[in-house]
Amino acid sequence: MRSHYCGHLNKSLVGQPVELCGWVNRRRDLGGLIFVDMRDREGLVQVVVDPDMADVFETANQLRNEFCIRLEGEVRARPDSQINSDMATGEVEVLAKHLEIINRSDVLPLDFNQNNTEEQRLKYRYLDLRRPEMSERIKLRAKASSFVRRFLDEHNFLDIETPVLTKATPEGARDYLVPSRVHKGKFYALPQSPQLFKQLLMMSGFDRYYQIVKCFRDEDLRADRQPEFTQIDIETSFMTADEVRQVTEKMIRDMWQELLDVNLGEFPVMPFSEAIRRFGSDKPDLRNPLELIDVADLVKDVDFKVFAGPANDPKGRVAVLCVPGGAQLTRKQIDGYAEFVSVYGAKGLAWMKVNDREAGVEGVQSPVAKFLSAPVIEALLDRTQAKTGDIILFGADKANVVAEALGALRLKVGLDLELTDLSAWAPLWVIDFPMFEEDDEGHLSAMHHPFTSPLGVTAEELIANPASANSDAYDMVLNGYEVGGGSVRIHDAAMQAAVFETLGIDEEEQQLKFGFLLDALKYGTPPHAGLAFGLDRLVMLLCGTENIRDVIAFPKTTAASCLMTDAPSLANPAALEELAVAIAVDKK
Amino acid sequence: MRSHYCGHLNKSLVGQPVELCGWVNRRRDLGGLIFVDMRDREGLVQVVVDPDMADVFETANQLRNEFCIRLEGEVRARPDSQINSDMATGEVEVLAKHLEIINRSDVLPLDFNQNNTEEQRLKYRYLDLRRPEMSERIKLRAKASSFVRRFLDEHNFLDIETPVLTKATPEGARDYLVPSRVHKGKFYALPQSPQLFKQLLMMSGFDRYYQIVKCFRDEDLRADRQPEFTQIDIETSFMTADEVRQVTEKMIRDMWQELLDVNLGEFPVMPFSEAIRRFGSDKPDLRNPLELIDVADLVKDVDFKVFAGPANDPKGRVAVLCVPGGAQLTRKQIDGYAEFVSVYGAKGLAWMKVNDREAGVEGVQSPVAKFLSAPVIEALLDRTQAKTGDIILFGADKANVVAEALGALRLKVGLDLELTDLSAWAPLWVIDFPMFEEDDEGHLSAMHHPFTSPLGVTAEELIANPASANSDAYDMVLNGYEVGGGSVRIHDAAMQAAVFETLGIDEEEQQLKFGFLLDALKYGTPPHAGLAFGLDRLVMLLCGTENIRDVIAFPKTTAASCLMTDAPSLANPAALEELAVAIAVDKK
Repeated sequence: MRSHYCGHLNKSLVGQPVELCGWVNRRRDLGGLIFVDMRDREGLVQVVVDPDMADVFETANQLRNEFCIRLEGEVRARPDSQINSDMATGEVEVLAKHLEIINRSDVLPLDFNQNNTEEQRLKYRYLDLRRPEMSERIKLRAKASSFVRRFLDEHNFLDIETPVLTKATPEGARDYLVPSRVHKGKFYALPQSPQLFKQLLMMSGFDRYYQIVKCFRDEDLRADRQPEFTQIDIETSFMTADEVRQVTEKMIRDMWQELLDVNLGEFPVMPFSEAIRRFGSDKPDLRNPLELIDVADLVKDVDFKVFAGPANDPKGRVAVLCVPGGAQLTRKQIDGYAEFVSVYGAKGLAWMKVNDREAGVEGVQSPVAKFLSAPVIEALLDRTQAKTGDIILFGADKANVVAEALGALRLKVGLDLELTDLSAWAPLWVIDFPMFEEDDEGHLSAMHHPFTSPLGVTAEELIANPASANSDAYDMVLNGYEVGGGSVRIHDAAMQAAVFETLGIDEEEQQLKFGFLLDALKYGTPPHAGLAFGLDRLVMLLCGTENIRDVIAFPKTTAASCLMTDAPSLANPAALEELAVAIAVDKK
Repeated sequence: MRSHYCGHLNKSLVGQPVELCGWVNRRRDLGGLIFVDMRDREGLVQVVVDPDMADVFETANQLRNEFCIRLEGEVRARPDSQINSDMATGEVEVLAKHLEIINRSDVLPLDFNQNNTEEQRLKYRYLDLRRPEMSERIKLRAKASSFVRRFLDEHNFLDIETPVLTKATPEGARDYLVPSRVHKGKFYALPQSPQLFKQLLMMSGFDRYYQIVKCFRDEDLRADRQPEFTQIDIETSFMTADEVRQVTEKMIRDMWQELLDVNLGEFPVMPFSEAIRRFGSDKPDLRNPLELIDVADLVKDVDFKVFAGPANDPKGRVAVLCVPGGAQLTRKQIDGYAEFVSVYGAKGLAWMKVNDREAGVEGVQSPVAKFLSAPVIEALLDRTQAKTGDIILFGADKANVVAEALGALRLKVGLDLELTDLSAWAPLWVIDFPMFEEDDEGHLSAMHHPFTSPLGVTAEELIANPASANSDAYDMVLNGYEVGGGSVRIHDAAMQAAVFETLGIDEEEQQLKFGFLLDALKYGTPPHAGLAFGLDRLVMLLCGTENIRDVIAFPKTTAASCLMTDAPSLANPAALEELAVAIAVDKK
């Protein structure tokens, strides 16, 4: 039905007949002629209808926006004065010879030229996706997955599918469950990741595995989360953490080069402890020049408990951000930041403006200055290398509160004061994560997952001193987003048992949940390591959007609904009966 | 950790040092030396351990089957007398210089050299997949998907993901349902296919879409079905059925050429009615030379109600298979076939052996000969072109019973008498399906799905005479398997309404179930058509196996269980409570 895409027409085709299929993007009547901007997947082209062609003209007269049409015509060069350099096909136009209306269109419920609410856009997603901005994103996503597959195929990775209907896992608290019709009263779980299956594939000897695969997590959603998300899932045998990082870093670097013509360079590698110390985050945005500066040693003897308390607490921390140009902040703005950090548990935000660095202690303005001696203030100014016009913002609390509060404040202030270079790309690896996280009651949980290998300790050493153990895990961070994470896995049955013991998972529970994995460890398991990238986030970054829904063809809302199809919905009672499932909703 | 794969070593590497990682496939002690067949993903190589290397020899002495090892050694040519031409690496061996046991192995619960039950193989799937026969299948599957993606990328198809958590559909009777935690009492459905989403993508203007995607059907399983299966899903705009068939036929032909070095040639195209008439099936196996031959006209006046009844019934049919060499069948074998066809509703199996064609009526032997006049028997022999030694098998019943019974018998007899050329490849397209199927009460249901376009009728004509309408649908059949199916879709709102009306789906139900699709049809929907291939079946055919579980890494049993992970399983009661779901299993 078509000889060319609209968006592909150019001067080399002048004089040639073409057949086009697409949509009326816009129609204008001008000087007795009708101009139609005709659109297809590849772009727009201008069609001209001359009143001399009576039939065609009459049809063209009926055209409205978004009519689906088929056109036969001839490509001709536009006069120099009419060349539109904003348009890829702006040097040519098509003179209509034959025009067919394939399908009419009502007036769209979305206005392509105005801002629609996201709710409207999601309800009429199939129309929203006609907007070139949106369709370009979906096309870029297709290019990205295609690139990944080509790269991994070339590097000897095998694309192997793992099940979607799986057994519930320990992270099970957020599993989507699927009742079984055959085994009434039993359930499948949708996978939060193919973790165990990919480890089993290594035990099977497949050596290098990948899959671009849907994963599912039934959790409270945030702007960059979806109930179903897509993972580039990778696992290798006989490769060290370093080698896994090398090959996956190359994949991302090559991808940015090919799709954006951007060279990401070599990724710095930073231990978790350094990331927390310098940036208050395990996914630091290195486009932002601000760093946390520890000052506990300077304030531990001051007569100001807000500082001296945490400074003398082994679990406390006192740190500052020195913000260039921050002295310009109003009292109201600073109060706003104080409220901002309170969300992270900070009980206030002490600050110190450096109005005149030359003037030393006399040149600072701060509600807390009165609690600090002149030498302490001088020492703070020296430590932070503060300059005239800066502001020093204090965090003093439990170490994790300080890290979270100043880490978040760092990002916010960096954006507000335009210190962050939004045009830059800043990748890094974060490594050497703690093996376990401890909650307030001293219970340990796995920071990554219980199959992650500890780093440099034996099973006995791990059991003796679990809290201080690090894991051989690594995250890839890009512009403050964790885009991928992985680890070397445990391939030794004794070590796996030690980790379960540390986590307080007894043997019965181990057998029930992971019996097959523990069994498998008996039969010559190879050393293996892997990683998973969040494809949605990678594409979000490639597209330069901050809304993950913009890079998913049919996304769900933050309430996990599809506004277009109205899912989830009520189920057929007969179907529920057959599944032996009843709804237990409180009618109140 | 490794310089080469075991399976890649060859004469060009003689004299070079290599580092290998893999498994002990077999160890033999011979003439004071230890020989180890070492295995990795790419194959086997023979390792020789000399007692002169005391350390290595001592380690090698501990080796048992399936130990995971790392080896450093030197490639050397085998003496001519020891070259093993059955082995890809059979011209070389590796002299061990350093040997490390990475992980020991218990004696396997599977015996690689004997037949294990499928139950054992599924329970220890990760070990079963170590068998080269199995790992080759999974590798071929990876090659097949990779080929498909490359082909479709090159043909301008965009890989676009559609949701897994979707709205229940009308085929909903076999939907897997997923309770929503956020919207208590409501459910998502896992997709039986992305049908509506791919149509919406065409309405969005994406023009050419594909996806290799998991689909789900909660139905009683057969040997070649799985609760989750993988579809190569394709949809196009502005292409006719012919064009869709051309591009997808080329894909399959190129795939067979590249992966098997087999030329499938051009696929014949056969209308549904012809397939049923000649082969009793809409997925005929053309490797089998037998055809159904209609004889109703010959027997409609005989004094034998079994034949004359169906021959005079407009919904009846009398047909035969003339089987070369079938006169050799024993009475017991024929009785077996009679029982076989009874499964399809046939009430018996009349037969006629042609012991001597030259002798005419005198040369036949048949329990029904006495009911037939000599001219009728002569006419039957002429019509079937029977030869001495053949048997004629009769089907006389409702037309669909005859087609099913003789269609199935044709396949069975073809295999039993080795008439079917199992080394051949026989693809074809079946087209022009009936639009609707009628049940015994005269209710119509869609033969494909309700979005399939009727062929050559207007909406008014369809409503006036639905039972006789054909659809613009097509199936690709290969060696008797339906490997793919698709259709031109309805892009006209009035036609879609007519189909729903014919199916007895009222407006309220239409709005509730497909409101978004009917809405979408108002906004310039393009003509579109598509097709979906069953990837599992294609790979099954590529691998030459008849067990679909052999081409899936972690399949489920015909009872939809995973014997390895023991899924489905009991759910955490707290999780069910949070989902507002209760189990309604009768305790008895």
